[in-house]
Amino acid sequence: MQRITSLSNPRIKSVVKLQQGRDRRETGLFLINGYREIRRACDCGFELCEVYLWPDALERFLEQPERDAFVRQIERKGTELFEVAAPVFEKIAFGQRAEGIVAVAKSRFGNWNDLRLPDNPLIGVVEQVEKPGNLGAILRSADGAGLDAVFVADPVCDVFNPNTIRASLGTVFRLPLIVDSSETILRELLRRKIHIAAARCDGSVSYTDFDWTGPTAIVLGTEADGLSPTWFHPEIQAVHLPMSGIADSLNVSAAAAVFFYEARRRRTNP
Amino acid sequence: MQRITSLSNPRIKSVVKLQQGRDRRETGLFLINGYREIRRACDCGFELCEVYLWPDALERFLEQPERDAFVRQIERKGTELFEVAAPVFEKIAFGQRAEGIVAVAKSRFGNWNDLRLPDNPLIGVVEQVEKPGNLGAILRSADGAGLDAVFVADPVCDVFNPNTIRASLGTVFRLPLIVDSSETILRELLRRKIHIAAARCDGSVSYTDFDWTGPTAIVLGTEADGLSPTWFHPEIQAVHLPMSGIADSLNVSAAAAVFFYEARRRRTNP
Repeated sequence: MQRITSLSNPRIKSVVKLQQGRDRRETGLFLINGYREIRRACDCGFELCEVYLWPDALERFLEQPERDAFVRQIERKGTELFEVAAPVFEKIAFGQRAEGIVAVAKSRFGNWNDLRLPDNPLIGVVEQVEKPGNLGAILRSADGAGLDAVFVADPVCDVFNPNTIRASLGTVFRLPLIVDSSETILRELLRRKIHIAAARCDGSVSYTDFDWTGPTAIVLGTEADGLSPTWFHPEIQAVHLPMSGIADSLNVSAAAAVFFYEARRRRTNP
Repeated sequence: MQRITSLSNPRIKSVVKLQQGRDRRETGLFLINGYREIRRACDCGFELCEVYLWPDALERFLEQPERDAFVRQIERKGTELFEVAAPVFEKIAFGQRAEGIVAVAKSRFGNWNDLRLPDNPLIGVVEQVEKPGNLGAILRSADGAGLDAVFVADPVCDVFNPNTIRASLGTVFRLPLIVDSSETILRELLRRKIHIAAARCDGSVSYTDFDWTGPTAIVLGTEADGLSPTWFHPEIQAVHLPMSGIADSLNVSAAAAVFFYEARRRRTNP
């Protein structure tokens, strides 16, 4: 295994650049920091290009048998593996150095042709989400509530932003995920005859009165501006959460969790 | 109205220090950034000590009649009012300069003697919460779901941290809020004969099967370590959210929102 000790090593420089969204978009690569997240990406079929280990931390974090098995699994796939010195790891791990492992992986998004949905799907749609932490928490709740897919419409933030991955606990790798425009997502939902609930403060139906039992997508917009005009459509029902206090909405990831779990509850105990 | 243009003005230096938790604890003062949040603090009886205006931004943000009424209201209460230059405002507004108004306010916490609860209260308890943004989002959901009080047990972060206030949309000022040790909070809940649901991944009862209709407190711990041993007690029922995917828990503020809204739903439509 090659050892890298210099911060001016060109590989390290390219890895550091991937902390910028622009560089991720241009290269189609992204960073995964942490053992659990890297495992999940592997298990879900993401391709790892390079893996960087800082043995001091990794040995503290993982028992030897598990560590060896993981390293062998990576090597078998032909992924390049590097051991790096502490200052190099510090630089590529952007502050999260506890687990001593960072990977460079290839971005992969779902597409409409390959999308396989069950007969009665439950889908989350998030429009123009800005904060990677919110997107990650929404994906984690979608995973927990058993949603069949999440469609990310016109995102402002990057699906493979390090904060999205971390906040999602790696569920970003498992969930069928499509990133597309609101127009295309709406068209696909209508074509597949999926009922659409749009979360709106002024929605005419309370989330407890909406019928969640059929094929359903719940669409959430930004906290500042709500949903774009695309989602004002005669076939879309606007659904609200009752607000008893002084605030007129919840944080978008809190609202998503309430909608997803209510849908789940109604579909499990009709 | 006095005008401050120098960054080395001693008042400005003390305001900047309040961005540190240590200084807030020592002085019992905190900062509120933004018109809506400052209004909410005023409406909820928080005492403002000083208010700093940057007219360029405030005039863009607020119409003149509303602005004048607000300034008069502040002056009537005897609060000191300062106009500051752009670089000074930049410094005290820690990046959030859009509304052109920052206030220094006195901390105020609820206490057990003054706590007035309805006959059948619904209460949120958050133990050792670390991230101010999570605490703020939890308070916002508690406000939305109509909780009667929130008890903050052994917090790691500061209730009046600027990020808590912002994420709470100012609901931190409205909700009856007590900060105390887990032991004292548990004793007070038991003394008041309030049923306690502890959110735990391994809880024996699903949140949909728990009886939320009586006087109830729902207790949430940290994502990393769960609840402290205090909350393992024969009179406490451990309640879980079903997790259908690969993650074993939700983000704490997402989980809080699901519990709070399910409790609300069951108490509204029994």
